Amino acid sequence: MKFIIQRDKLIAGVQDVMKAISSRTAIPILTGMKIEAKQSGITLTGSDSDISIQSFIPVEEDGIVHVEEIEEGSIVLQARYFPDIVRKLPEKSVEISADENLKVTIKSGKAEFNLNGQDAEEYPQLPMMQTDDGFEIPTDLLKSLIKQTVFAVSTMETRPILTGVKLKFTNESLNFTATDSHRLASREIPVQPSQLDFPNVVVPGKSLNELHKILSDTEDPVEISVTNNQILFRTKHVYFLSRLLDGNYPETSRLIPEESKTIIHAKTKDLLNTIDRASLLAKEDRNNVVRLATKDNQLIEITSNSPEVGRVVEEMTVQSIEGEELKISFSSKYMLDALKAIENDEVKIEFTGAMRPFVIRPENNDPILQLILPVRTY
Amino acid sequence: MKFIIQRDKLIAGVQDVMKAISSRTAIPILTGMKIEAKQSGITLTGSDSDISIQSFIPVEEDGIVHVEEIEEGSIVLQARYFPDIVRKLPEKSVEISADENLKVTIKSGKAEFNLNGQDAEEYPQLPMMQTDDGFEIPTDLLKSLIKQTVFAVSTMETRPILTGVKLKFTNESLNFTATDSHRLASREIPVQPSQLDFPNVVVPGKSLNELHKILSDTEDPVEISVTNNQILFRTKHVYFLSRLLDGNYPETSRLIPEESKTIIHAKTKDLLNTIDRASLLAKEDRNNVVRLATKDNQLIEITSNSPEVGRVVEEMTVQSIEGEELKISFSSKYMLDALKAIENDEVKIEFTGAMRPFVIRPENNDPILQLILPVRTY
Repeated sequence: MKFIIQRDKLIAGVQDVMKAISSRTAIPILTGMKIEAKQSGITLTGSDSDISIQSFIPVEEDGIVHVEEIEEGSIVLQARYFPDIVRKLPEKSVEISADENLKVTIKSGKAEFNLNGQDAEEYPQLPMMQTDDGFEIPTDLLKSLIKQTVFAVSTMETRPILTGVKLKFTNESLNFTATDSHRLASREIPVQPSQLDFPNVVVPGKSLNELHKILSDTEDPVEISVTNNQILFRTKHVYFLSRLLDGNYPETSRLIPEESKTIIHAKTKDLLNTIDRASLLAKEDRNNVVRLATKDNQLIEITSNSPEVGRVVEEMTVQSIEGEELKISFSSKYMLDALKAIENDEVKIEFTGAMRPFVIRPENNDPILQLILPVRTY
Repeated sequence: MKFIIQRDKLIAGVQDVMKAISSRTAIPILTGMKIEAKQSGITLTGSDSDISIQSFIPVEEDGIVHVEEIEEGSIVLQARYFPDIVRKLPEKSVEISADENLKVTIKSGKAEFNLNGQDAEEYPQLPMMQTDDGFEIPTDLLKSLIKQTVFAVSTMETRPILTGVKLKFTNESLNFTATDSHRLASREIPVQPSQLDFPNVVVPGKSLNELHKILSDTEDPVEISVTNNQILFRTKHVYFLSRLLDGNYPETSRLIPEESKTIIHAKTKDLLNTIDRASLLAKEDRNNVVRLATKDNQLIEITSNSPEVGRVVEEMTVQSIEGEELKISFSSKYMLDALKAIENDEVKIEFTGAMRPFVIRPENNDPILQLILPVRTY
């Protein structure tokens, strides 16, 4: 194997693929990165067996040559040193070659690295996926969907299915839902009507967090396709493959109250800042509990009390309050997470009493829903 | 106690003073920050008993009012919450008051924090220092002196005196020297001739690191004064007081070779990058050892070998090589630290054989000296 590659292209590819590589893995060869040279270009592969990422660097793109002097072949390189080496090489192009004894040479300018490689034959084969039955959504929209829901997954392994985000496909919409059983985050987007029949799947939150890091803020499409136990996200040059979670995801639709007794309309940022301040003294407290009480004259009062440290109280003017008086306590962390996920200047919060879950939605009626279970303190 | 203060001024003062406050201290009241209101302004004090920092916010400065409605008094506040509270308050001004029951109220806009304070009488008295016999150097120059030497202090408590930087005052110069007995960093600057007789002192490296963070990049003067067991650095509004280290600092001047057998003149940045690359594979190695060998035609060769990982070799063109051929091994970390401390484009490295310490100096003859002991491998 041999090729000469533009260093900036190699850096970008290596960075993406590294997100799947862990130094702690049961399969030693997976601590390495697979490099495969073909006449069409270079493919980098990393995997921790839950997530696999492939980055393809084509020989040529838009008339610009990225790779030259290709002799086909493949090798696995220790991923621990490779990114630093590539990043710190002195020149704009890099020559990488491997001989039959698995000795790898990386040359750039006068710098030469000789590394021990591993046989690419020993690297696990990635599951082949049919990619012609996928559907597409814009990359930046997928990133929003992830960001607005993934924080609500459970971090506890007691109910593994809740550590994932449920993706529900219909032929007109795609819905992301996450819950840790104390709160729930959900968003739906319309998609191009499709003839295809997609199963509903649960994707590990960790996979979606890594995917979010790799995707760029562009409107270019991501193609999503699903098989029994894998989901593939495919952009122009990156394949992101994740295993799916097994098990029955709980039915969440009945958690969402259908009527409300008190509705507060407020400026998202004002509410976020006020709750953030009230939470400052509650740091020690496991639940970071703050209290909200409605007052007259479009006022709400946010308070928090930490017996040893002190007390904070703040009145805040809201747009309007409809319905019954209310006093309710909740986790400030959950509330802050939810408000940050609402990408709108104004929010509507619907309560059905101090002991019932309440729902936060953007005022613009985007199908984003954040639900939080209160804490019993009153 | 009561006063109304501009929030940005308070934030800056609190940030500085926090550098001295540790949550792990044997004296519980030192986890707090002392706030003292006088008609002239507000003084904030923090201390971990090794370092004490005072920040003064005057009532008025350059015609701008910083503090208003002062009622004199003092209180000690839990430092854990105070910086976050101040930073996140909603308005530009903050009212702080304390009553006779040590209850502290912080108000800004509609936000009100009620905190439990502690009696300022219980806060240890800072040692009073005569400050009229100090001498002055520009702040940015003091920062350079610290940055160019402090990294070479020992991190081992086996010889506590080496964890400090030695400050040697003559009536015409000030010299900073640090060594961990494997390397040495030293710089001297001229100072205004002084009638005063300053003792030589050893200041903990940790103190100088904190001082470096607080000092701004300005040419405004810092006044330095010394008593038996304390050193005071005083800028316009900040007092920084550190204890001194007890003990005899070793005589280092005789470590510095007076003659040399091989001299290499090189571009600082090229050498730094080359050694940085060579050190990439030596990460696991405790000493991060790289080897340097002189070659013909103004070339040096930098190599590093990590049996399990691989080998790196790079030739580098230098400005000139004088004297004997040389092969020498040294810690890449020490060499990188030393080269980063040389604030000049070109360096001169003087060797007296593979087993003797070598000296790195800037080509412009600034009195900066970096000395490194080689590692025996050849």
